[in-house]
Amino acid sequence: MAEARAMVMTGPRSLEARRLPLPDVGPDEALLQVEACGICGTDYEQYHGAIYAPYPFVPGHEPVGRIVAIGERAAARWRVEVGARVAVEPAIPCLSCPLCLGGRYTLCMGRRPMSAYGFIPLSVPPGLWGGYASHMYLAPNSVLHRVPEHLPSELAVLFNPLGAGFRWAVDLPGLRAGDTVVVLGPGQRGLACVIAAREAGAGCIIVTGLAADEARLALALELGAHHTVNVEAEDPVEAVRRLTDGRGADVVVDVTAYAVEAVTQAIEMAARGGTVVLAGTKGRRPVPDFYSDRIIGKELTVKGALGVDYASYERALAVMASGRYPLQRLHSHTLPIEEADRALRLLAREVPGEEALHIALVP
Amino acid sequence: MAEARAMVMTGPRSLEARRLPLPDVGPDEALLQVEACGICGTDYEQYHGAIYAPYPFVPGHEPVGRIVAIGERAAARWRVEVGARVAVEPAIPCLSCPLCLGGRYTLCMGRRPMSAYGFIPLSVPPGLWGGYASHMYLAPNSVLHRVPEHLPSELAVLFNPLGAGFRWAVDLPGLRAGDTVVVLGPGQRGLACVIAAREAGAGCIIVTGLAADEARLALALELGAHHTVNVEAEDPVEAVRRLTDGRGADVVVDVTAYAVEAVTQAIEMAARGGTVVLAGTKGRRPVPDFYSDRIIGKELTVKGALGVDYASYERALAVMASGRYPLQRLHSHTLPIEEADRALRLLAREVPGEEALHIALVP
Amino acid sequence: MAEARAMVMTGPRSLEARRLPLPDVGPDEALLQVEACGICGTDYEQYHGAIYAPYPFVPGHEPVGRIVAIGERAAARWRVEVGARVAVEPAIPCLSCPLCLGGRYTLCMGRRPMSAYGFIPLSVPPGLWGGYASHMYLAPNSVLHRVPEHLPSELAVLFNPLGAGFRWAVDLPGLRAGDTVVVLGPGQRGLACVIAAREAGAGCIIVTGLAADEARLALALELGAHHTVNVEAEDPVEAVRRLTDGRGADVVVDVTAYAVEAVTQAIEMAARGGTVVLAGTKGRRPVPDFYSDRIIGKELTVKGALGVDYASYERALAVMASGRYPLQRLHSHTLPIEEADRALRLLAREVPGEEALHIALVP
Amino acid sequence: MAEARAMVMTGPRSLEARRLPLPDVGPDEALLQVEACGICGTDYEQYHGAIYAPYPFVPGHEPVGRIVAIGERAAARWRVEVGARVAVEPAIPCLSCPLCLGGRYTLCMGRRPMSAYGFIPLSVPPGLWGGYASHMYLAPNSVLHRVPEHLPSELAVLFNPLGAGFRWAVDLPGLRAGDTVVVLGPGQRGLACVIAAREAGAGCIIVTGLAADEARLALALELGAHHTVNVEAEDPVEAVRRLTDGRGADVVVDVTAYAVEAVTQAIEMAARGGTVVLAGTKGRRPVPDFYSDRIIGKELTVKGALGVDYASYERALAVMASGRYPLQRLHSHTLPIEEADRALRLLAREVPGEEALHIALVP
Repeated sequence: MAEARAMVMTGPRSLEARRLPLPDVGPDEALLQVEACGICGTDYEQYHGAIYAPYPFVPGHEPVGRIVAIGERAAARWRVEVGARVAVEPAIPCLSCPLCLGGRYTLCMGRRPMSAYGFIPLSVPPGLWGGYASHMYLAPNSVLHRVPEHLPSELAVLFNPLGAGFRWAVDLPGLRAGDTVVVLGPGQRGLACVIAAREAGAGCIIVTGLAADEARLALALELGAHHTVNVEAEDPVEAVRRLTDGRGADVVVDVTAYAVEAVTQAIEMAARGGTVVLAGTKGRRPVPDFYSDRIIGKELTVKGALGVDYASYERALAVMASGRYPLQRLHSHTLPIEEADRALRLLAREVPGEEALHIALVP
Repeated sequence: MAEARAMVMTGPRSLEARRLPLPDVGPDEALLQVEACGICGTDYEQYHGAIYAPYPFVPGHEPVGRIVAIGERAAARWRVEVGARVAVEPAIPCLSCPLCLGGRYTLCMGRRPMSAYGFIPLSVPPGLWGGYASHMYLAPNSVLHRVPEHLPSELAVLFNPLGAGFRWAVDLPGLRAGDTVVVLGPGQRGLACVIAAREAGAGCIIVTGLAADEARLALALELGAHHTVNVEAEDPVEAVRRLTDGRGADVVVDVTAYAVEAVTQAIEMAARGGTVVLAGTKGRRPVPDFYSDRIIGKELTVKGALGVDYASYERALAVMASGRYPLQRLHSHTLPIEEADRALRLLAREVPGEEALHIALVP
Repeated sequence: MAEARAMVMTGPRSLEARRLPLPDVGPDEALLQVEACGICGTDYEQYHGAIYAPYPFVPGHEPVGRIVAIGERAAARWRVEVGARVAVEPAIPCLSCPLCLGGRYTLCMGRRPMSAYGFIPLSVPPGLWGGYASHMYLAPNSVLHRVPEHLPSELAVLFNPLGAGFRWAVDLPGLRAGDTVVVLGPGQRGLACVIAAREAGAGCIIVTGLAADEARLALALELGAHHTVNVEAEDPVEAVRRLTDGRGADVVVDVTAYAVEAVTQAIEMAARGGTVVLAGTKGRRPVPDFYSDRIIGKELTVKGALGVDYASYERALAVMASGRYPLQRLHSHTLPIEEADRALRLLAREVPGEEALHIALVP
Repeated sequence: MAEARAMVMTGPRSLEARRLPLPDVGPDEALLQVEACGICGTDYEQYHGAIYAPYPFVPGHEPVGRIVAIGERAAARWRVEVGARVAVEPAIPCLSCPLCLGGRYTLCMGRRPMSAYGFIPLSVPPGLWGGYASHMYLAPNSVLHRVPEHLPSELAVLFNPLGAGFRWAVDLPGLRAGDTVVVLGPGQRGLACVIAAREAGAGCIIVTGLAADEARLALALELGAHHTVNVEAEDPVEAVRRLTDGRGADVVVDVTAYAVEAVTQAIEMAARGGTVVLAGTKGRRPVPDFYSDRIIGKELTVKGALGVDYASYERALAVMASGRYPLQRLHSHTLPIEEADRALRLLAREVPGEEALHIALVP
């Protein structure tokens, strides 16, 4: 087995299967045999050409797999061995800049354009920088997490959205047991926020979505949400006021993609002194009717959420291992990497008549 | 002396001198003989009719004076006696709601339209609810601070903007010694932010202003700022990048009034992981070209700042008492309350050829 | 009904039934008809004479009841009316000192010897300052919480220990979902810590106790603890090491009474960078073999926990209302106030052959 | 120049000069030409045999020097080049464990006995692991700081104690502008705490010391302390009460070595809700008369302080570069590494008639 199978994105909406040589592994490096790789809106944005995409490259930044080769120093440092089953964080931080050393390594200042798996071109050796492949190279500063053996591959890759749920809905806003939290958007990350908020003891969880999200909103209730709001049937700001006796929510998390109006709604929904977490990017579109005075009048805290940190991923994996949640309900499709193109279009609701929630690609 | 002299705002841009009876003082109340009352943009907004103004009422929410009568329980609770010199906080909190009991009493949920000095109509007995008067009534839940005897009245009222400086530039953003901070707007509150940031050990303080602010920017340097930027001569975002080696500022505080573009500039100026404090209200105007993705991309924290808390006022008074800063340089005008109308127009730069920075009204 | 029935503590181990006149209620006050009053170790310490006890006085600082008379201003401020069912916090804070205004009112600096229910002598009018009575006076600065109608009185008084659970095991240590927490002592407060930690998503909860605590430890497991340790059968520090793969616990809460060795054990059990909350008082006895170097070597945070704040009581009441926990399992005895003496001895394990966990006194 | 000169500690109180080969430098490594190396109590404890000392080894964990050789990847990661003047942090963290990735790398769980400069035996290649030498090896995970050119070597090494001042007196206790802080012990770290506390705007700084510390206490006042207390002439707890109107200090930092009574004094001195930082180790001696109830009664926070983080060292270097403090007053001796033995005895007051404060060893 001297070659890896990989899908290479060669341009917008263009993916092709290739064979790439397997690298030798230095003392600080390793090689991962990929079991599965999750995909999310960011994958689609690369596919679509909306964000940084260093064509040609191997996409995929949410992989789970097994170590098949590892250098001695890497094994000591990561505390893993050949055969270990691991999840890999997207970012490859420098671990030397002030942000890295201060515990905010996902904001690493030392990162060139994007020093992250699924964002590095084939031209940078050894090329195998993404999860849409049978094998992925693990660079010296990779951040790994052990994955329990009993989790099926396609569910194990949920470590990524669920980690985001913990950081975005719990850690960043400082969610306290008993708090009321609103999650805007019932996608995989929104549903992950529901699980995380429930785990952290949220007293009331409200999830909003579109009419087309009916099944997702029902799933939100099953996972622990207390109320759902169809924003096409009821003004979500009014709904939150009604459900909170006019007080508003302690925490509002926006994970909607492209929906710029969700930002102003989130600010309106928040209670005095409350916190709004913005995690859904808007494709570089401006937010209309943005009144900063509303942030002042209620002394809100608004936090941007981009990455996920080590502790949040660990908590996600612990919750996944616990069996407390029906993870398979969050997962809709397992597809071979050769169908990555269809997977990405499915995720973006571009395939008529077929609905996807979470998709795992397997080599 | 059974009557107080007071200026009553009877409608937009309309103030008249009146005599109002002095109230008897119950066990939980007191009567303040006003020495001086500061004014700020909020006073002008009431005068202009832009914000809540319950005509007719006595304006003035930044008073300093002496206790001339006090009930027994009030004396015990506030630990003051007849003759005590005190500064009075604007807010009259309920001290019973969750926000009050949680230490955020300036966001009190129990407050009717505005339970604050300078915001209560004559029709609510005893009418003397504002600082533009010889006397002001002190209601049971007032929050007082002792004022050192050696501070002249017109400077003592600087406790209010300087308290804001500590809360907005230091506490809310969690300013750490060595941090780089940008203050947008060199008015009395902006200059107060400079003093507070310097006291807290800011490593680099940058202040922006207009061409007309030349004298204020010079004063900022004298008070401890390291750099100033004339935003009409240089793009302030570029200037901050230049002055921070491209890194941006740890903390950005916007205290500009009405300048909606300052909000987007503040977000652009902030370093990765940095904090933006919004304290300058924009007269209910929306912020154009507001890209929420910028908050996400740098994982910024944006905080609204409305009020000032007890600890910040105490620190302001301690710094004022220390004599370390030339407070008189922050103060431009002392005027009798009868000239309140002119004072308000001066503050708003409506009096051609005359520039004001901080104005104290004295009865 | 112009008189209240009350139990008066007249000296150490001396309680007698008395009739005391019902007071008139001023505008800032109210009168509570007591339904039940919980008791805890502090009640016993007063009974025993070990802590402040201003004989003669009506003990009882954990009451639940109904408002039967209320002044107009009190009704507005507390947002309650005649007939409202409320739990009363022990402390009567000044709400004017820096600690009160900063949100730490349970540390109120303005409190004379002890301005708290159950700690004020009969000689201070109106005398009805405790919960071992048919009625209790509510002073102006009382802090109240609404109690759901469906909770039986004897369980409703669990708001007090459960509030402590949230503050001591969750808030003070900053417990995060996934954390490992050790609770030393399986009394009513220890078990309340288990509930609170579980609500906040603790990943692993370990409870220690004596051999005599077998039933309590079993209850801890039922409430959500993952492991229990009989400290007479196994060294608890070794046990925690074993259960945490040698890492130690993120949070350790000591709620044992008198057990001074628990302090050093708590410090040994904590992981590097972990937090120890000390909540169990030791009767003014010193801790032997206390090595401060151990706090330094692991950079521990050790926090003293005395009171419970508003938010924690609210969360406790919300969890109680949810029906998620078998509260009746935490409750062992309901006794008339006339048997307060026996109740206190029961609680202290002074009644041979009878074991108590939580006791409610009813008038 | 193929050899380095180094002092090797071969056993307790035994140091000898040796020549050691200079290593080749791999891609992730570098070689430092040492300018000077500071020493502290920890050096003496190794010399004395009281703490971990892997004889034979090159001591020295506070070096400043210039890069004379560096690998390509190290240069990119650390952003330094040959000729760069740098200070080196003591710890060599794994940068992969949860504590490292969470920003607490000084508590690194991956560190074998002691993975820190000055703590690694000669037997681990390349042997040059300490600052008592002409050259020091820089391992892949070293943490470096740029040092301004204008600082003399013997003063530049003050980055180490001054960094501790910022972390221990400011960051760990969350010192706020206006706070009252007590520093127990006027050695180099105590005086560094004075500078840091003053930079962060402490309102009142009190320093305690022995009669023999007269000159140090005078220097404390010169550096910005407001009061000093000779603990042999006045009970320090009483003194702090007197100087704080009975309130106690917001922050107390204990940097005394061996003085176990300082721990209980620190706890007594702290105000309600205050914070005590323990940074002075006590040679594994227990603290007598330690009443944990005192921590509970005032709801104190007690924090252990072991290491210093990146941000604190950066702030120290910025303050040093500013020229605002007479650093030379903190420095007493510059000695050749060959006199390391005498330097260590001087520091421990073992050389009769000669007093030292801060000592720099130069190769």
